[in-house]
Amino acid sequence: MHEFRTRRKIEFSDTDMGGVVHFSRFFIFMETAEDEFLRQLGSSFWMQEGDVTVGWPKVEVTCNYLNSAHYGDELDIHMKVARKGTKSLTYEFTFHRGDEELAHGRTTSVCCASGPDGFHSIDIPEKLAQQIQQAPD
Amino acid sequence: MHEFRTRRKIEFSDTDMGGVVHFSRFFIFMETAEDEFLRQLGSSFWMQEGDVTVGWPKVEVTCNYLNSAHYGDELDIHMKVARKGTKSLTYEFTFHRGDEELAHGRTTSVCCASGPDGFHSIDIPEKLAQQIQQAPD
Amino acid sequence: MHEFRTRRKIEFSDTDMGGVVHFSRFFIFMETAEDEFLRQLGSSFWMQEGDVTVGWPKVEVTCNYLNSAHYGDELDIHMKVARKGTKSLTYEFTFHRGDEELAHGRTTSVCCASGPDGFHSIDIPEKLAQQIQQAPD
Amino acid sequence: MHEFRTRRKIEFSDTDMGGVVHFSRFFIFMETAEDEFLRQLGSSFWMQEGDVTVGWPKVEVTCNYLNSAHYGDELDIHMKVARKGTKSLTYEFTFHRGDEELAHGRTTSVCCASGPDGFHSIDIPEKLAQQIQQAPD
Repeated sequence: MHEFRTRRKIEFSDTDMGGVVHFSRFFIFMETAEDEFLRQLGSSFWMQEGDVTVGWPKVEVTCNYLNSAHYGDELDIHMKVARKGTKSLTYEFTFHRGDEELAHGRTTSVCCASGPDGFHSIDIPEKLAQQIQQAPD
Repeated sequence: MHEFRTRRKIEFSDTDMGGVVHFSRFFIFMETAEDEFLRQLGSSFWMQEGDVTVGWPKVEVTCNYLNSAHYGDELDIHMKVARKGTKSLTYEFTFHRGDEELAHGRTTSVCCASGPDGFHSIDIPEKLAQQIQQAPD
Repeated sequence: MHEFRTRRKIEFSDTDMGGVVHFSRFFIFMETAEDEFLRQLGSSFWMQEGDVTVGWPKVEVTCNYLNSAHYGDELDIHMKVARKGTKSLTYEFTFHRGDEELAHGRTTSVCCASGPDGFHSIDIPEKLAQQIQQAPD
Repeated sequence: MHEFRTRRKIEFSDTDMGGVVHFSRFFIFMETAEDEFLRQLGSSFWMQEGDVTVGWPKVEVTCNYLNSAHYGDELDIHMKVARKGTKSLTYEFTFHRGDEELAHGRTTSVCCASGPDGFHSIDIPEKLAQQIQQAPD
């Protein structure tokens, strides 16, 4: 799998006094799409495997805003795997309301496991690595 | 100690499209005041003591809204210990902008410690229990 | 209509370092359920009617927490109209994960319209008032 | 003025179940620093000037995460004006806990004014444009 689509309705609490969705909320929308993608593959964004926690902290995120999103809007979110590394995944996201693009973003998450000294990066678990492909250019 | 005063400036992201502070933010303001109160006593809202985590999850919260708070406002927060139990503390909060009361609230937190089966309530640690008094009526 | 049911999946960003949903998030869940209820009746929580904005600011909210909610949980939210006034509506909410009750809350919203001097309370619009009934005791 | 320093204490509600500050919170920290910078110059991030609202919506934001921030940490935030355009300002931010860099970010805000057809970009008001300089490379 190399892409994923989901939809999200804007809530009142997503907005700010400018009358539009606060820019930081788009990162929540991206993270939840990432989580839904991983759950569809039988995994998730943060998992307990015995004594070990395996999660995907972010190392780099970016978002560009083209048009405002409003309370009640339904956003179509498209996500693709822009880069598949040994230990990390970079996703690209676009946000549309109907035909209009509102924003696009990019996040890089590193697969990490908890150990006695805190979190450290690990190779993406084999089963998951086989399920996820890098999107064609 | 039975009361505590602090001050908080309203941020842009505290607001919603109604042009005022979102009602849920007052609970964040209360929690942070509670934390500052406990830190002043050398404790805090969530602490690691060896292998054990001691924290104060909430069991009941309420807030009444009288007037709106706006971006840039400086809120004067007054907190008092309305009830001191063996395992719990109930705080009452008022929020003022100058002489005008904007809101008042109440939260009850139970002292809990982590164990092999999750969190369970414990007596308030003795040192802290000695430092905190119930406010006079 | 005097009650409404909805469902919500807990997101990673709903949690705090205690490993559970932050208590303040339940108020967001309540507000979104209130909004979905009003939308089902052809209204919404915040509306533009010509030059006038009609909305439902909250005047009193409360929540009791019985059990923790976790990342990935699906919460069943039940909402009923506990009191229908001329200008206000009080809703009661329960949150369940399967058979287990996690929390229950109560919010009172006042119907307000924008005017030259800011927001003021108004009677609930007649059509909406006819559609909403107080739940039987 | 071409740079600004501020400090922020991490609150419990800034954290997620990973035990660290949620990555999206750094954008709130950046926005609040931007606001404090503008307020120091007698302006602010969102202002009413007669009938017109002048604000600074963001068009591009990015953040890189090097080390985790924790509940109770005091973050030293340094912000500089990386690029001063006719209508926009690009800021760069670094976040330190003591000597350790935790994150660095970049946001671009466009000066906008409300009109009959919504917000549109405008030249930075002359007085403010004179007060703000681009930081030396």
